[in-house]
Amino acid sequence: MKQSIIVRNVVDDISFGAIVKIRDQLLEMQRNGKKVYRLESGDPSFSLPPHVKEAIKRAIENNKTHYTDSTGIPELRRAIAEKLVRKNGIKNATPENVIVSNGGMNALYVTFRSLISPGDEVIIPDPMWTEIAEIIKLAEGVPVRVPVENYTENLLKYEDDEKIKAVFINSPHNPTGLVFTPKQIDDIISFAESKGIFIVSDEAYEDVIFDGRKHVSPASKYDDTISLFSMSKTYAMSGLRIGYAHTNNDLLYERMKKLLRCTINGVNSATQYGAVAALTGPQEFVGQMRDEYQKRRDIIYNAVLKSPYLEPIKPGGTFYLWCRIKKFPEGVKDSWDMTYYLLDKTGVGSSPGPVFGPAGEGYIRFAFSADTEQIKEASELLEKFH
Amino acid sequence: MKQSIIVRNVVDDISFGAIVKIRDQLLEMQRNGKKVYRLESGDPSFSLPPHVKEAIKRAIENNKTHYTDSTGIPELRRAIAEKLVRKNGIKNATPENVIVSNGGMNALYVTFRSLISPGDEVIIPDPMWTEIAEIIKLAEGVPVRVPVENYTENLLKYEDDEKIKAVFINSPHNPTGLVFTPKQIDDIISFAESKGIFIVSDEAYEDVIFDGRKHVSPASKYDDTISLFSMSKTYAMSGLRIGYAHTNNDLLYERMKKLLRCTINGVNSATQYGAVAALTGPQEFVGQMRDEYQKRRDIIYNAVLKSPYLEPIKPGGTFYLWCRIKKFPEGVKDSWDMTYYLLDKTGVGSSPGPVFGPAGEGYIRFAFSADTEQIKEASELLEKFH
Repeated sequence: MKQSIIVRNVVDDISFGAIVKIRDQLLEMQRNGKKVYRLESGDPSFSLPPHVKEAIKRAIENNKTHYTDSTGIPELRRAIAEKLVRKNGIKNATPENVIVSNGGMNALYVTFRSLISPGDEVIIPDPMWTEIAEIIKLAEGVPVRVPVENYTENLLKYEDDEKIKAVFINSPHNPTGLVFTPKQIDDIISFAESKGIFIVSDEAYEDVIFDGRKHVSPASKYDDTISLFSMSKTYAMSGLRIGYAHTNNDLLYERMKKLLRCTINGVNSATQYGAVAALTGPQEFVGQMRDEYQKRRDIIYNAVLKSPYLEPIKPGGTFYLWCRIKKFPEGVKDSWDMTYYLLDKTGVGSSPGPVFGPAGEGYIRFAFSADTEQIKEASELLEKFH
Repeated sequence: MKQSIIVRNVVDDISFGAIVKIRDQLLEMQRNGKKVYRLESGDPSFSLPPHVKEAIKRAIENNKTHYTDSTGIPELRRAIAEKLVRKNGIKNATPENVIVSNGGMNALYVTFRSLISPGDEVIIPDPMWTEIAEIIKLAEGVPVRVPVENYTENLLKYEDDEKIKAVFINSPHNPTGLVFTPKQIDDIISFAESKGIFIVSDEAYEDVIFDGRKHVSPASKYDDTISLFSMSKTYAMSGLRIGYAHTNNDLLYERMKKLLRCTINGVNSATQYGAVAALTGPQEFVGQMRDEYQKRRDIIYNAVLKSPYLEPIKPGGTFYLWCRIKKFPEGVKDSWDMTYYLLDKTGVGSSPGPVFGPAGEGYIRFAFSADTEQIKEASELLEKFH
């Protein structure tokens, strides 16, 4: 076989390799009987609320196991549209301009692959959740990294760049936990409007937001926004792979719809019924999870504050604690080393900042989505680590 | 908004538009109280066997709702590898060279997008299930349509074409129901081997095969085969979206794995447990469904034989009846017209041949995946239609 025929290196090998390496070291330590803390990646510790479990089991029992509309079952698209109007203030949302996707990741892929032409540039925050740049590259676009600190001021440098086709935002922001203010959202909208470009808004963490902050959806003020949501965080449905997207642009919607059909041909039918139950049923659960995440944030933030090595940045949302390495331990020279060193000395996993982009150098990220007991124990270890 | 920035017409509009138009007309007739028969598309009428239902419900109950490995849970990859060795004779299959996908469609997309470089050609049968050419085009490849009749002889014309990077086969074949003979599989392998190219083998209908025919997996004889399977047909899991792929090529596997991660990030967790139960549990169900499909085939085939307009081609597998239009009714001038005319006069839906490629002109396709009672009634109407 001529290996040369496989020429497309579809994703950046380095970051992915690194993440796998950390996970493998964690699992190896676990196998050797060492207690480890899985703070290297974010997966909600919560179980599904009973009414969502029941809805999925009922769908299976009632043979809702046949092909569905590739954009999603009508009941779910209705529930999503109503939620977008009511909760996000997206007044033009209808069952005919939303799609159901295989998690937020799939919504991102379908969006960028429908939107970008080869060579188009998309502004993204630096640092940024690793896969965003990879998805843009898969769609043959060029991610342009702009420091997330003072994002809106930094955007202005690109006012005359004709290659920019969209500006991406993610608020609350993974990995820093930053929540954009309403003023910042307005400034991003002004920038997009003046250039006549789209905003792609990843709102996966809209409900994981602390200290009474309010989430703002750009699409409530700017029509040319593609809004992306996930059921993974709000309803702890991560493994069930369900998310959704909204666009007011008919042509783009048609493209997304066809791309869904040719890449996944629809989302798991039974889970779609679970999603209807989640969106239309009691919502207390969402607030309870948020309160628990805030409690965990306070525990780990206060512990890391006492570390001689790390300076934590208090997150306004998400379940990530972004930490500047203020002093490197003896023999440790960068973020990668720091991650391994910390894992080796304390058993606490973390992600090295550079996997999120160049601005991540000198930082590491902890996830506090693991259960509160784990976060407490890990926090004590981090506090004592000198 | 500058509409010009959305320039990528990701899929062929004509075929998709047509399929939607037929479905809409069927639904419209249904709303107007007319009895219609959904023979325009293939969705198994069967319900999941009880032990598969139980496994999915148990997974939901036991909180198997968290992120899984993006290539699939280890139990499922083990079950798949064992099945590939045992049933398909793919001796080198292991849990580390299979991926779990969001249905067969997703396996196809991930395969072609990992394999093809822009401009690469892939030989596909003509006619062919519509989405195949679209997926190849999405991956920026060029589908080269070769008449499915005498496929192996026709392939030889491409012996010196250096742009061909893979040959695609689908046996049993949608839409014609053709099953490749072992000799034909051997000839295709010789062709691929002599050119040093891959075979991409879509085996979604491996278990819907009639009259005692045996399914042959090319990968049992040719290592550079990418084999794609679906749980949709064998286990009636169409709406649950689960399929799988195998490749013995490490580099390609890495690419597929990363593409899975960045496009869907894994398949519905609960359904993966259902798939383990399906693959490792009692298999009687598979044979019972096959027998029922064969019964339906005989009913509709024998009915259409008596039509003055249509000449049916007896399918060796799949649940499709491919029919040549031997005489056009008054005022009907092509396959599209014929589909609408038939629907209007009898209430029986069908697909016009040209949506499957140029060789489909002058043909229509019926699906006999609807339940046997429906097939009987539709067959009577088709038989009486003069």
